[in-house]
Formats: sequence, C-alpha cells, structure tokens
Amino acid sequence: MQHVESSAIEWDPAPEEFFTGEVWFGPLAPPVTDEALNTLGVMFSPGARTAWHRHVDGQVLYVAHGSGIVANEDGERVQVTAGDAVIIPPGEVHWHGAAADSHMMHLSLTTGGPTEWMGRKVSDDEYMG
Amino acid sequence: MQHVESSAIEWDPAPEEFFTGEVWFGPLAPPVTDEALNTLGVMFSPGARTAWHRHVDGQVLYVAHGSGIVANEDGERVQVTAGDAVIIPPGEVHWHGAAADSHMMHLSLTTGGPTEWMGRKVSDDEYMG
Repeated sequence: MQHVESSAIEWDPAPEEFFTGEVWFGPLAPPVTDEALNTLGVMFSPGARTAWHRHVDGQVLYVAHGSGIVANEDGERVQVTAGDAVIIPPGEVHWHGAAADSHMMHLSLTTGGPTEWMGRKVSDDEYMG
Repeated sequence: MQHVESSAIEWDPAPEEFFTGEVWFGPLAPPVTDEALNTLGVMFSPGARTAWHRHVDGQVLYVAHGSGIVANEDGERVQVTAGDAVIIPPGEVHWHGAAADSHMMHLSLTTGGPTEWMGRKVSDDEYMG
C-alpha cells in the first residue's frame, strides 16, 4: 500500500486553457489505467472555476474545504460547502468552482478516462448566475 | 446532477459481522452498477476498525477527519490523519480503523464490486501492533 501524506502532495497549476482564475491540481491517487479511478484534489481561489466540460462515466465531487458552486447546462446550480458531495451523471455538461468569497478544495472522483472539455470557459455572467 | 449535502447524509451502523467497535456508514455516491465507483463515508469511534478484507480493484481511502491506522498482511502499518490518502492495491488483504484516542472519518473509494471479507476480525494484539 502507499501512504499519500497530505503534506507530501505536490500541487501544480491547472492548465490555463481549461480554467479561469487560480486553480491547482494535487493528485492523490492517479489512475493506474486510463479508465481506472482517478482521485484528484483541486484547489480553487475565490472566483476561480473550471471551463465547461463533461465525463464519460460522470463525476463525484467531494468538498473537502471551503465553499463553491456547481452548475450544469440545464440551469441547475447549487452552492456547496465542506462535507458535501455532488454526483454528476455521465455526459452532463457542467462546471464547478469556488465561491466569490471563499477558496474551495474538492476531490474530483472519475473513472472512464480523461475529461472532455467543451472548448468554452465560464463567462463572468455565467459564473454570477 | 445530485447535491448530497453533508447534513442530509444518513449514517447507519456498519454490519457488526465485519467490524469491531462502533462504526457508521454514510453513503455519498452509491455505485450505479455493481462495478462502478462507490463513494462511501465511514465513521469510526476511537479503537474501532474493519475486519481483514480486500477489494478486487483495490481501494483509495481519503481521511476527511481525525486520525487512524491502515495496516496490511505484510506487516506494513501507517498512521494517517486528516487530508491523507492511502492507496491499497487490488487483492491486498488489509484493515483500517481509528486511532485509540481519536475518531476517524474516511471516504472509501472503490470500483469493481463489493468488499471481500476474509472471515476474521482484527484482534486487540493486531490492532495495537
């Protein structure tokens, strides 16, 4: 077994192409095959968010710290806080990010391969809702 | 999408057959098929622990609160605390539980179907290491 101590996780900047604002990736348990479970910590500064995207097998988010927003193309929008989870079904186009006045760290739990990015960022109007 | 608020999670006693001490299950994102991702919160009282078990696809633990112990049949044993993860390979026989002086809540992240229980609990000697 492998012990991944919190203090030993390496946080690297998330790719600017797919995020707005300051976002960091901290891999906890990278997938052992392309389709296997990927457990990724994601740290968002206030106001930072993903671009629009989807996941073949869907996604489970677990909010470890702070508060944020998760929204989808159908107009659903929820405020989340530490201890909450969000279940996003396969193929649902969505985004997530920190609240305007809070950092957020969530775990991104996926299987089935890499994120499918839709080629557009979340505008300020979309973010403000 | 489905928002699973921390305050809405229903915590039920874990099956006594497979645990020692007081342990509670709080399902965050139950698997949509037998083999899909299962995101389960597990709350251990001080000294409480699983029985010996293994997982077909292995397991990722994420310690959300408190401190605990993860150990395997090969004699590896680690102390874990909030923010840590542990990656347990497919088929590795192991147990996990709270420290003697702390609660622990961890997420259990598995795919590939139900836990395989080995039919024996973790003795006090094994627990004390």
